[in-house]
Amino acid sequence: MPETAPTAPAGSAVPPPPRPRRSWWGWGTEDKALSDGECAALGALVPGAAATPLPVPDVRSVELPKPRVTPPSSLAHLMSDTPPDRASHTYGKAYRDVVRALRGELGTAPDRVAFPRSEQDVVDVLDWAAGADVVVVPYGAGSSVVGGVEYRGDRRGGVVSLDLAGLDRVLDIDTISRAARIQAGVLGPDLEARLRPHGLTLRHFPQSFEFSTLGGWLATRAGGHYATLLTHIDDLTESLRVVTPAGVNESLRVPGSGAGPSPDRLFLGSEGTLGVITEAWMRLQDRPRHKASASYLFDDVKAATAAVRAVAQSGLHPANCRLLDPGEAALAGVAGGGRSVLVLGVESAHFPVAGRLAELGALVRDHGGSPAGGTGDAPGDDSAAGSWRSAFLRMPYLRDALARMSVISETFETACTWDRAEGLYEAVHRELGAVVREVTGAEGMINCRFTHVYPDGPAPYFTVIAPARRGAEAEMWDEIKSAAMEVLGAHGATVTHHHAVGRDHRPGYDRQRPEPFARALRAAKHALDPAGILNPGVLFDGERS
Amino acid sequence: MPETAPTAPAGSAVPPPPRPRRSWWGWGTEDKALSDGECAALGALVPGAAATPLPVPDVRSVELPKPRVTPPSSLAHLMSDTPPDRASHTYGKAYRDVVRALRGELGTAPDRVAFPRSEQDVVDVLDWAAGADVVVVPYGAGSSVVGGVEYRGDRRGGVVSLDLAGLDRVLDIDTISRAARIQAGVLGPDLEARLRPHGLTLRHFPQSFEFSTLGGWLATRAGGHYATLLTHIDDLTESLRVVTPAGVNESLRVPGSGAGPSPDRLFLGSEGTLGVITEAWMRLQDRPRHKASASYLFDDVKAATAAVRAVAQSGLHPANCRLLDPGEAALAGVAGGGRSVLVLGVESAHFPVAGRLAELGALVRDHGGSPAGGTGDAPGDDSAAGSWRSAFLRMPYLRDALARMSVISETFETACTWDRAEGLYEAVHRELGAVVREVTGAEGMINCRFTHVYPDGPAPYFTVIAPARRGAEAEMWDEIKSAAMEVLGAHGATVTHHHAVGRDHRPGYDRQRPEPFARALRAAKHALDPAGILNPGVLFDGERS
Repeated sequence: MPETAPTAPAGSAVPPPPRPRRSWWGWGTEDKALSDGECAALGALVPGAAATPLPVPDVRSVELPKPRVTPPSSLAHLMSDTPPDRASHTYGKAYRDVVRALRGELGTAPDRVAFPRSEQDVVDVLDWAAGADVVVVPYGAGSSVVGGVEYRGDRRGGVVSLDLAGLDRVLDIDTISRAARIQAGVLGPDLEARLRPHGLTLRHFPQSFEFSTLGGWLATRAGGHYATLLTHIDDLTESLRVVTPAGVNESLRVPGSGAGPSPDRLFLGSEGTLGVITEAWMRLQDRPRHKASASYLFDDVKAATAAVRAVAQSGLHPANCRLLDPGEAALAGVAGGGRSVLVLGVESAHFPVAGRLAELGALVRDHGGSPAGGTGDAPGDDSAAGSWRSAFLRMPYLRDALARMSVISETFETACTWDRAEGLYEAVHRELGAVVREVTGAEGMINCRFTHVYPDGPAPYFTVIAPARRGAEAEMWDEIKSAAMEVLGAHGATVTHHHAVGRDHRPGYDRQRPEPFARALRAAKHALDPAGILNPGVLFDGERS
Repeated sequence: MPETAPTAPAGSAVPPPPRPRRSWWGWGTEDKALSDGECAALGALVPGAAATPLPVPDVRSVELPKPRVTPPSSLAHLMSDTPPDRASHTYGKAYRDVVRALRGELGTAPDRVAFPRSEQDVVDVLDWAAGADVVVVPYGAGSSVVGGVEYRGDRRGGVVSLDLAGLDRVLDIDTISRAARIQAGVLGPDLEARLRPHGLTLRHFPQSFEFSTLGGWLATRAGGHYATLLTHIDDLTESLRVVTPAGVNESLRVPGSGAGPSPDRLFLGSEGTLGVITEAWMRLQDRPRHKASASYLFDDVKAATAAVRAVAQSGLHPANCRLLDPGEAALAGVAGGGRSVLVLGVESAHFPVAGRLAELGALVRDHGGSPAGGTGDAPGDDSAAGSWRSAFLRMPYLRDALARMSVISETFETACTWDRAEGLYEAVHRELGAVVREVTGAEGMINCRFTHVYPDGPAPYFTVIAPARRGAEAEMWDEIKSAAMEVLGAHGATVTHHHAVGRDHRPGYDRQRPEPFARALRAAKHALDPAGILNPGVLFDGERS
C-alpha cells in the first residue's frame, strides 16, 4: 500500500518509522480522527446535531461492485483490486464523499487501482486503456473536495484509478536557478523534507498540504496559504511533463517566454482531462529566516475590509493577510463581541522584516484597526504562525467529526473584485442564510475569512455549519451547495478560487466559462484524448466530449 | 487617417494640437526621423557602413499590387485602399521590414485596410471575411518586429488589415478595485493620459509604448520595462473580450480563479490567430510617488551576473534592474574600460524607498559592485529614469537611420535559467560572432543587456550591429537571424521573451513548442476559426491549419 510505504528522506541513514495508516473514508490518518466521545462532545456544541456519531464501516466488509476490468498480464503487477484500495480511491474528501463513505455507499468504486512506478508505466496504462475503452481517473492523494476523482458514468469498459504515489522523487535540484525537477506524486511534507537540506522550499502550503501531491496542485491550480504574490501553483511552475494519449508533452524550461499561448497554462487546471502530469520543474525559494506577525481588531467588518484592501494595494506584499469576520473570529476563539480580526505576517529569507510590518501596521491603524498582539522578527520566531498552522491542518478532522454527528460543514471559496466584495458578503449571509434555514430548519452558522487578497479583490472563504437530518446529510448538502453556486454566479464571483471544478462545480463552471473557449477546449481535449478516457465528467460533458 | 486623428484627453476642454504624421516606412513619427545628414554622421561611426543614406521613397508613387478585395456596400465605409494606408500596413517594424519598405518592395501590401469604429464592426468584418475567404490580419499600431502583421501567402480572396485604432476608449474605471475596461486599440500614451486624472496607471511601458496598443500587448504577451514582478501584460489582465469567428468570448472579471484552464491564457499570445481582442479589464496601480535609483560598476561581467541573480532572488523586487554588458555600457556612454553597469531602481506609490534601495545596494556591493551614482527619494524625483527613458524611446529611430546607411542593426531577446545564462552569453558572442563575420565580412558588434530578471533566470537582450552590403541587407539579416535562433535553441533559451513569434520566429517556435500542445492548439484554432482567415502563417502552418 503506497499510503504506508516508508520513504527515506534524502541523506537519511536511519529508516523512518512506518507512517500512520491513511483513513479510507475521511481526512488524513486514522490516528488523528476524533474518537466517538470527541465526536459527541463536538456535536453537543451544535444545536440540532445528532446525539451519537455515525459508525465507521469496516472497510473489509463494505459492499463493492464486481470489477469489470481485466488488465493485460504486462500491466497486472501495477494493478490492485483489493477492497481497501478500491474503497479508498472511490471518493475525494468532500463532505458528501465522507457521508457516503460512512453510509457504505461505494457503488462508484473504481474497478482497479493502478500504481505506476515510472512514467513509462503511465504511458502503458493510457495506451491500454485507450484501446480497451477503460476510463482512467488520475489520482494524487485524493484530497479533492469537488468530486474530481470519482467517475460517475457507466462506461462498460470499466474504470481505473491511476494513483501517482509511486512517482514521488525529486529528480534534480538546480540551486543556481533555485528550481527542482519533481515527480508529480510526491506529497507536500516529503517534498519539503527533500528540499530542506538545500535551504530551499517550494513554499506552497495549501490546507491539504499533508495529503495532496504536486501533481494534484498543478492539475487543479491550487492556491497556497500565502496571502499575496506567489501563492498560486501556476506562478511557481517553470515547465511541465504531461503524458497524454497523443504523446508526452514537455514544455521548455525557461523563466519567461512570449512564444505563443503558454503550453503550461493549458494543462494547469485541466484536472486530469487532458493528460497525466508526471513531473514538473518548479520554482523554489530560499527558506525564510525572518518572520514577524501582528493582529488587529476591528469593530466593523466594512472597515476591516477597507483596511485589507489598502494592504493589498500597498505594494508591501505581506506573506499572510487573513481577515476573519466576527463569526469566524469567535469560532476560532481569537475575538468576540462582533469584532473582526486581521492577521498580518511578513517573511524574508534575507532581510529583517520588522520595518515592513511597521509600515503595514501604520496602514491598518489608519483604517481603524487596534493592535491585538504579535510576534517579533528574530530568525526562526514563528510560534504564532506555527500554532495557527496546527489549527488550520486540524480543521478537516473536525469536519469529519461533524459529519459523523450529522452536521453539515461545508466550505466554499471564491474571488471577486473589491467593488463587489461587500455586496457578495452580505448576499451570502442573507440569501444563503435563508436557504440554510429552509433546508435544515435551523439557523446554522455562516462565517467568512479572506484567505488570499489581490490588489483587485479578495478571495473570501465561507464556512456553513448546520445540523442535518440523519440519513439526508448529502442531499441537504447538495441543496446548500447548489444555492451557494447561484449566489456566487449572481454576484460576479468565480465558482472556485482554488478548489477546482471537478464534477460538483460543473453547473457553475458551465455558466462561468465563455462558450467560444469551451468550444476550443473541447477541441483540444479531443485532439489529446480522442478516446475520451481521461476523467470524463470533469470540466466537460459527456463520455467522448 | 487614424494616425493623425486628435483625441482629447478626458476632462480636457482645449483640443490638443494635431499629432505629427506617422512614418509609413519606419519607426514612429516623421518629425523624429534622423535627417540625411544625421544618418550619414551616424553611419560614419560604423566601419564599413555606406557613405550615403538610402533614399526614402515617396509613398504616393510606390508600386502596389492591384486590390483584389471588394467589400460589401455595408462595410465599404470602413475600408480604405489608398496607397498610404496600404503601404503603411504592409509591414511591421523589423529591420527587414524597414529595408524592404525603403526598397519600395510592397508586394505583400493588404488589399484594403479596415478601420472598425465599434466591436460590431469587427464582428461584421470577420463574418464577411469568413464567407468571402478573405484573410484578416489584426493590426494594433504595427510595431511588430517578427512579421506579425504581414501576410505572406497567396489567398486568392485577398487580405484585409484590420486596424483597431478606432477602438481607443477607456470604457469604465473602477477606482475601488483599481481596474479599467479598455478598448484594445488605444495607444500607450493615450491610455496613460486617461488614467492619470484618477491617480492610476497600467504601468506597462514596453519600448514600443508610444506606437503600440493594449490589444497588441495582449496578443503578443508583451513585457513591460519593469524588471521584476508585474511586468508581463499577462499578469495585469483581469479579463478579455475577444471576437472570434465562433462568437464573442468574454471571460469573467475576477482577481483570481481556479476554474479550469485559464481562458485568458489561451488568447494571450495568440497573435491574432484565434480572435480579435476588442477590450480588456486591466489591473491598474497607483502612480508611484517615491522613486530612487543607483548605478554600480563591475570589472567582471560574471560577477555582475552573480550580483543580478542575488538581487533577483532577494525578494526585494526592484522596479528596475538592468545590467549592461561592457559593449552595451560603452555604446550607451555610461562606462568604459570593459566594465559592466547595473542600474537599480525602486518605486512606491505609498512609502519612501530609500531603505529598500540601501538593502539592494548592500547586496550588490557584497558581490563586488562599486557605486557609480544615483538619485534620491523625493516625490517626483525621476530625472535619471526620465533621461534613460528618452534614450530608450529614441533607439528605434537610430535603428532606422542605420538601416538607411545599410548597417544591420538586429536585436533579439530571450530568457533562460540562471544555470545556463553564462553559457548562453558566451555562445552568442562566440558562435553568432563567427556568423556575423562570415556573413558581413566585418567584426561587427554584439552587445547584451538584461531587460528583465526573474528569480530563476534573466531575460538577455542582444544587439547585433554590422555593416551590410547595399542591396543585400535583408538577406544578410535573415542569415544572422536564423543563426541567432539556432544558438538560442541549442542553449535551452526561449525563441522570444517578449517580441512574440509572428512569422519570423516560426522555425524556432516550432522546435520549442511541444508537439501535443501544438496539436491541441491547432484544434482550438480550427474550432474558433474554421475558415482559417485569421492571420494565417503566424503560430501555425498552412492556410487552413
